[in-house]
Amino acid sequence: MNEFELIRHYFTRPAPSAVLGVGDDAAILRPTPGQELHVSVDMLVEGRHFFADVSPQALGHKTLAVNLSDMAAMGARPRWAFLALALPEVDEAWAQGFSCGLFALAEQYGVELAGGDTTRGPLTLSITIMGETPQGQALRRDAAREGDDVWVSGELGLGALAVAQRLGRLPAAGLSDDVLAACQCRLDFPVPRLELGQALLGVAHAAADVSDGLLADLGHILAASGVAAEIWADSLPSLPPLEAERPRWLEFLAAGGDDYELCFTAPLAARQAVLAAAAQAGCRVTRIGRIVAGSGARLLDATGQAIALDKAGYDHFA
Amino acid sequence: MNEFELIRHYFTRPAPSAVLGVGDDAAILRPTPGQELHVSVDMLVEGRHFFADVSPQALGHKTLAVNLSDMAAMGARPRWAFLALALPEVDEAWAQGFSCGLFALAEQYGVELAGGDTTRGPLTLSITIMGETPQGQALRRDAAREGDDVWVSGELGLGALAVAQRLGRLPAAGLSDDVLAACQCRLDFPVPRLELGQALLGVAHAAADVSDGLLADLGHILAASGVAAEIWADSLPSLPPLEAERPRWLEFLAAGGDDYELCFTAPLAARQAVLAAAAQAGCRVTRIGRIVAGSGARLLDATGQAIALDKAGYDHFA
Repeated sequence: MNEFELIRHYFTRPAPSAVLGVGDDAAILRPTPGQELHVSVDMLVEGRHFFADVSPQALGHKTLAVNLSDMAAMGARPRWAFLALALPEVDEAWAQGFSCGLFALAEQYGVELAGGDTTRGPLTLSITIMGETPQGQALRRDAAREGDDVWVSGELGLGALAVAQRLGRLPAAGLSDDVLAACQCRLDFPVPRLELGQALLGVAHAAADVSDGLLADLGHILAASGVAAEIWADSLPSLPPLEAERPRWLEFLAAGGDDYELCFTAPLAARQAVLAAAAQAGCRVTRIGRIVAGSGARLLDATGQAIALDKAGYDHFA
Repeated sequence: MNEFELIRHYFTRPAPSAVLGVGDDAAILRPTPGQELHVSVDMLVEGRHFFADVSPQALGHKTLAVNLSDMAAMGARPRWAFLALALPEVDEAWAQGFSCGLFALAEQYGVELAGGDTTRGPLTLSITIMGETPQGQALRRDAAREGDDVWVSGELGLGALAVAQRLGRLPAAGLSDDVLAACQCRLDFPVPRLELGQALLGVAHAAADVSDGLLADLGHILAASGVAAEIWADSLPSLPPLEAERPRWLEFLAAGGDDYELCFTAPLAARQAVLAAAAQAGCRVTRIGRIVAGSGARLLDATGQAIALDKAGYDHFA
């Protein structure tokens, strides 16, 4: 099986909304008139973003999920994906599993794979995702305002816990197998918060997804908006056994990456609307702090004292 | 210098036509109403698409040029590019050179870098390029018709000759230093035929760019259009010293990749219009064959006999 057969066999599915899909020099698309187009690119490298022995299904899911999460953070409806793939060799079983994982998630959200590129090389995956929002309504990072509440969806710390366990760096004992299994699921099959992102249009001010760690990703919102935030350590949501020992797991909750939850800000007057949006999306949301004047995020304990963490977020070149 | 500083310092330039450029979860674009949107992705891997010691300027140019060439092959006006970059380490001198090469070409054609992703990993570069054409006018691969002329722009065989020389596989002697220098320039700094592609809208039928070799890329047009082609070996254009010894260099001309010329078909009635488009674009074009009934491309000598080549095109997994 050569390059072209691999593409035809495993990566060519109908893309009915495209004028022209896989197989020409470019795909041809007709964006919806009056909508703004959102475009984001993520690249995943073996040994850095995923372990070499991850199942191809999980990898197919995750490669698309992290891109869909960027669309969720803008409040965008995802429409088209493009996959660039460097593979060490033609491995049909791998391609079969990877494409299943990818297309299962794509179909769930009505995303079409409209093109891409395949070459030989160290295993590297890059997806370009495109989505749409009504004009002027996107959830941008620069829209947080002093007085806003800070919210986060779902649970924090699971992805980082799974990575730490895998690397043998998990603080000794205490977590049951089912908790560790839930963490592993989060790492392998993160769920992009697309319904929540779209439900927050016109409700939230600013948003970002938690890929590098809560404080790091919130930091991008703060820097872009020219504001600061107080985050209440005791409020950070996670699984019950982790919430029960919050101080022990605080670094994972506040600075652990790979969760793909949404962190967003919204005015006080929108509290009910935020909860209604979360209910509509079938997703937990938690108020974890507030936007204040200044710069940077301060993590506070129950007495209002600042807590210093060793690690504030993920930097690929650190 | 960390990941974010690297992006800010070397890869953030004004993107005035974007609603929101580098620095959020996604870029926000407003496609031109009534135009179709073209999207293409290419991935370049060290040791496969470029030599490890290529200059960073050349690599920056080439990474964008091969994507712009896809837009040229559609007749599209390129508008936005997204760069995904895996780097073994932060190397400021490299980033400086690479970004200069990339932005110099981008500015020449009015393309804006509107986003991307940076990570650590084996040197891998992937660009997603987006362009526009008036609705229904794109040069598609499936539009070749029986009786069409087959044309090619510029000169063939130069990129493949430079690769062969570099690998010590060049058939012994006979080519002067200035010819070899011209081949090396083509390999390092290919010129995307954007003006020609756009000038051919409404004139040509089908088009593809010559990245994997003339016969291979023409083969995609033939397969998509359900037709065959006769190609006249003696007509294939190249540099004068290569044309003077055509039989010796035929494999490079007919099957060598990396030239990024346009191969296109047009009806006989459009011959004058093709030449006018080429003159407008400041680019040589040569009539090299014709579309006939059947399937596949046949390379013919001066007596009409079919010529067999050892190598028909580039397959990344061959």
